[in-house]
Amino acid sequence: MTLDEKALELHAQWKGKLETTAKSKVNSREDLSLAYTPGVAEPCRVIARDPEAVYKYTIKQNTVAVVSDGSAVLGLGNIGAKAAIPVMEGKCVLFKEFGGVNAFPICLDTQDVDEIVETVVRIAPIFGGINLEDISAPRCFEIEEKLKQRLDIPVFHDDQHGTAIVVLAGIINSLRVVGKKKEDCRIVVNGAGSAGVAITKLLLRYGFPNITMCDKVGILKKGMDGLNWMQEQMMEVTNLEGRTGTLADALVGADIMVGVSAPGIVTKEMVSTMNKDAILFAMANPIPEIMPDEAKAGGARIIGTGRSDFPNQVNNVVIFPGIFKGALEGRATAITEDMKLAAATAIADLVPPEKLCDDFILPEAFDPQVSEIVSQAVKKFI
Amino acid sequence: MTLDEKALELHAQWKGKLETTAKSKVNSREDLSLAYTPGVAEPCRVIARDPEAVYKYTIKQNTVAVVSDGSAVLGLGNIGAKAAIPVMEGKCVLFKEFGGVNAFPICLDTQDVDEIVETVVRIAPIFGGINLEDISAPRCFEIEEKLKQRLDIPVFHDDQHGTAIVVLAGIINSLRVVGKKKEDCRIVVNGAGSAGVAITKLLLRYGFPNITMCDKVGILKKGMDGLNWMQEQMMEVTNLEGRTGTLADALVGADIMVGVSAPGIVTKEMVSTMNKDAILFAMANPIPEIMPDEAKAGGARIIGTGRSDFPNQVNNVVIFPGIFKGALEGRATAITEDMKLAAATAIADLVPPEKLCDDFILPEAFDPQVSEIVSQAVKKFI
Repeated sequence: MTLDEKALELHAQWKGKLETTAKSKVNSREDLSLAYTPGVAEPCRVIARDPEAVYKYTIKQNTVAVVSDGSAVLGLGNIGAKAAIPVMEGKCVLFKEFGGVNAFPICLDTQDVDEIVETVVRIAPIFGGINLEDISAPRCFEIEEKLKQRLDIPVFHDDQHGTAIVVLAGIINSLRVVGKKKEDCRIVVNGAGSAGVAITKLLLRYGFPNITMCDKVGILKKGMDGLNWMQEQMMEVTNLEGRTGTLADALVGADIMVGVSAPGIVTKEMVSTMNKDAILFAMANPIPEIMPDEAKAGGARIIGTGRSDFPNQVNNVVIFPGIFKGALEGRATAITEDMKLAAATAIADLVPPEKLCDDFILPEAFDPQVSEIVSQAVKKFI
Repeated sequence: MTLDEKALELHAQWKGKLETTAKSKVNSREDLSLAYTPGVAEPCRVIARDPEAVYKYTIKQNTVAVVSDGSAVLGLGNIGAKAAIPVMEGKCVLFKEFGGVNAFPICLDTQDVDEIVETVVRIAPIFGGINLEDISAPRCFEIEEKLKQRLDIPVFHDDQHGTAIVVLAGIINSLRVVGKKKEDCRIVVNGAGSAGVAITKLLLRYGFPNITMCDKVGILKKGMDGLNWMQEQMMEVTNLEGRTGTLADALVGADIMVGVSAPGIVTKEMVSTMNKDAILFAMANPIPEIMPDEAKAGGARIIGTGRSDFPNQVNNVVIFPGIFKGALEGRATAITEDMKLAAATAIADLVPPEKLCDDFILPEAFDPQVSEIVSQAVKKFI
């Protein structure tokens, strides 16, 4: 049985990977009178007088919506709301299992930006945070920005920021291993969608001075045709030297490549033109931009991928559960840039110096400390 | 400590009466690869090809949204979305505990009919059914009707139909006890909001020939001022004799009174003008239209209330969990009138003849058979 067949069979057996469970059991009339009528009226009255009390008496304090319109699901593309459900259920499972955060999937039967924003705003009262998921770029940027303006609870697009934070954590530790300083590194980010843009922004904010973005058309440059509005913004802060050419051209003399693009598009030869001790995060899923052995053969020193069957899995499951755990526990109204940087540093610092090496730059997803450490890092900036 | 104080303290301890729980545990990389990436892509692909498969592989098969705009919460009135959350969480607890149905509260930050409809339609993909709750009349009728037209999953306003079904069940058994036929009974329904209208409709459909509706202004009659559009419709099928006057006038010679109105508005003297073996369902909460001992003193034979501390509690918790359990298991696209009548009859039949008496006309909420019996009754009409 293949993995796909086994996964399908299990999904049929699970009959939903998630369930809602009562914490307040109702085994007697008295239970019923306390959890439901008439006793339930009292917390309602208190919240009606003081809306902040909603955090004290309801699931809002520890519950997140995982919201998708199904427009960019995994590598499957625009498969719509219903077909996105298995992913969103899975994400909710990870929120609970790794971060102790309740999460419920909301799969939207619209792909209109303003309708999505309106809908999420209207259902927000019950939620303590909004995790956006698998929404295509550049729509995702606009949706996230509008929701942040409209809501007083944290809004976080994990495909952007979760990915950016774990990449930054991996790069911080990679530089420790190879002994380079951020100021001296030239970075190429290949893929200018939601993840590529967010990674670039966070690396810039962390202090990397020189980043070039590439896409299917090659190096992106200010003023070129075909850029979306977000890419145009990014051209104000990247590729300030005005480079042109292909991804291969961009990689010549680069120290770090981050790929969030397509399988197999980087060759051994391209890697060999990069600087000494090159770092490659080849995160196309399930087939990376270049396989680790090929990249090593080209002279790369540290290789990360999205896969669990190679060393250095770059997986945002180490990020989002802890981010929301901290934000909810600390009642943050937003996930700020400081929180993201703090989370990345905390994740990097979680790898003990004696373990840190070419093939071990990030903590394991199953490390039970991870979400607590990230949560504490986030709470320092609330 | 009063019940209110205890309920408030417990709500603070529960930190939410509901939680989301993973059925698919993720304790290893293999677990992760099956419940999440890359394995999760396979059920996504299957659903993208065949949308019906969403019922086989996701929580849609057994999950209901409990939707409220907070406009008519318990007897508290229009307290808004956040203050409604404790009630909606409680309702979700009852769905799970009594019917085994997953339910998630959706409290809406809008009270505009069309916005509510649009929002529910957009979030519907993940849900197998929509339970509307505590939405004020006559808006609730319009919202329910529009949602039924737009959605292919069952939509059920429990304040209307759950209440109507349990009232009918109670009346069926009351008539068995007193030995009257439905054709011979004159009924007064006091309260012409969501519950009163739905009760009247269902009693008419069951075959009661003569129903008079009353409201604060007294007897409602065709052509009078101040009726909403739904009440106007009801005047086409009720009070065909054109009665006028007060509730007291309406009760003279009546066999059955159903109150979904206000505390203490019925007196012993009014009851004494009703027919022999009068049946009163006085369901104002927490204080009924008339206390049971008063009603008995006035000559009534069977008294039901909403309270658990008197005999004959008329509680829709015996209805809604089984209704949705059956609808979801049988993949009904709507809750039909036939299903409602079948559920009422099934509930009535659940009281064994040897137990049936003035003070025992309905099964207990905690009877473990109840939701299964209701579910089976519903499924016969799918």
